[in-house]
Amino acid sequence: MQTHDIDYRDETVNLRGYLAFDEKIAERRPGVLVFHEGLGLGDFAMARARMLAELGYVALAADMFGERRQARNLQEVAKLVGDLRNQPETLRARGRAALTTLAALPQVDVHRMAAIGFCFGGSVVLELARDGADLKAVVSFHGALATTIPAVSGKVKASVLVCTGADDPLAPPEQVKAFEDEMRAAHARDWQVISYGNTLHGFTNPAADGSMTRAARYSAQADRRAWASMRSLFDEVFVDEVFGT
Amino acid sequence: MQTHDIDYRDETVNLRGYLAFDEKIAERRPGVLVFHEGLGLGDFAMARARMLAELGYVALAADMFGERRQARNLQEVAKLVGDLRNQPETLRARGRAALTTLAALPQVDVHRMAAIGFCFGGSVVLELARDGADLKAVVSFHGALATTIPAVSGKVKASVLVCTGADDPLAPPEQVKAFEDEMRAAHARDWQVISYGNTLHGFTNPAADGSMTRAARYSAQADRRAWASMRSLFDEVFVDEVFGT
Repeated sequence: MQTHDIDYRDETVNLRGYLAFDEKIAERRPGVLVFHEGLGLGDFAMARARMLAELGYVALAADMFGERRQARNLQEVAKLVGDLRNQPETLRARGRAALTTLAALPQVDVHRMAAIGFCFGGSVVLELARDGADLKAVVSFHGALATTIPAVSGKVKASVLVCTGADDPLAPPEQVKAFEDEMRAAHARDWQVISYGNTLHGFTNPAADGSMTRAARYSAQADRRAWASMRSLFDEVFVDEVFGT
Repeated sequence: MQTHDIDYRDETVNLRGYLAFDEKIAERRPGVLVFHEGLGLGDFAMARARMLAELGYVALAADMFGERRQARNLQEVAKLVGDLRNQPETLRARGRAALTTLAALPQVDVHRMAAIGFCFGGSVVLELARDGADLKAVVSFHGALATTIPAVSGKVKASVLVCTGADDPLAPPEQVKAFEDEMRAAHARDWQVISYGNTLHGFTNPAADGSMTRAARYSAQADRRAWASMRSLFDEVFVDEVFGT
């Protein structure tokens, strides 16, 4: 497997992503964006990119904060995430910059791209779906589901999968309901929400041990289930394709 | 594969179930109950029993109405289902009678049993879970989620999977929310709810073409997804077991 940093830009900042792919595959293959949690692009999202590369995809872990900035504590998370949340068009543009970068890679089949995201990154992939990005699928793992720019009818192209903890205080039941109502109103072509009982925020990340915030807690079971559901969705949307052979 | 009718009783009526299993498997293996929709035990539930047998399980399609009664129209469905719903203890006892019958089969490993149900049958498997039945898992496919005897704390042993259409008028969002609240309050050990967008009642049944009720409509996609999620859950709860080899 090859992994290396990859520099790109949006209008305002330098972004430093992380690319992972199997260089032994000759054909163009599906590309998957990975959007990091509120701490910034670090080990966790990079490991997910490598897991995707092992599955035969080209994986680009995006940098949403610029210069691969990392938050060191919850205050910095709130600042970095808040700045983007308050400027949803900037957030979307930055997500699109990653998509453009992915699509330009010689290994990637531009007709078969998807995006996944964790926590903050989950909300990014939903924003890309609302924005009508050219993605076959988006998967949000314990992402916030609210938006200030709700999807408009007919704009969402991607198959949308939301994997959420039933006890996640950052995506409470009212927010899940509002999201479902938004998808209905927008006539989103294909969406599903999986709610895992006894599950908090951050359930995919083994580092979520309750020390930084009691809202987040790793769940091996929910992590495994959500990843398997993502894989099933990818198998569906990238179907009739042979790659990695 | 062997299939044959199997007669059993509860306190009040003769029940005529339908058994399917692979007779070439020598070992005891997991047993799965299949609970029929409001029309009664017919082709649909029997076909699911055979699909389970092909997966290596012993499948018993239960008869909840007695003498394998069939409803010919929605009025008869309402009568047959209503009679049982109004007597939840009778409904539960009748479900338990099927479980006792399954557990007594020489092919079945009594430590590895599960129950699935469709429409009305979905509500039956949830009643069995609330009742503390000795099941590793229950799966409701577009079942009604409401109950008159909510689960009490600590009683639910089974892993619970609810697969529901986001537009199912028989399981509207308020009912889904109430169910999730019930599971939380009961400290159910393991539960998940999957909500499929653009999906009505009866999504697993190709015969649901809108002619009998506009509330029900087959969805090949939701059907495939829900069945795959059931299989994943069975793989989890029956884990560390070798059978069918």
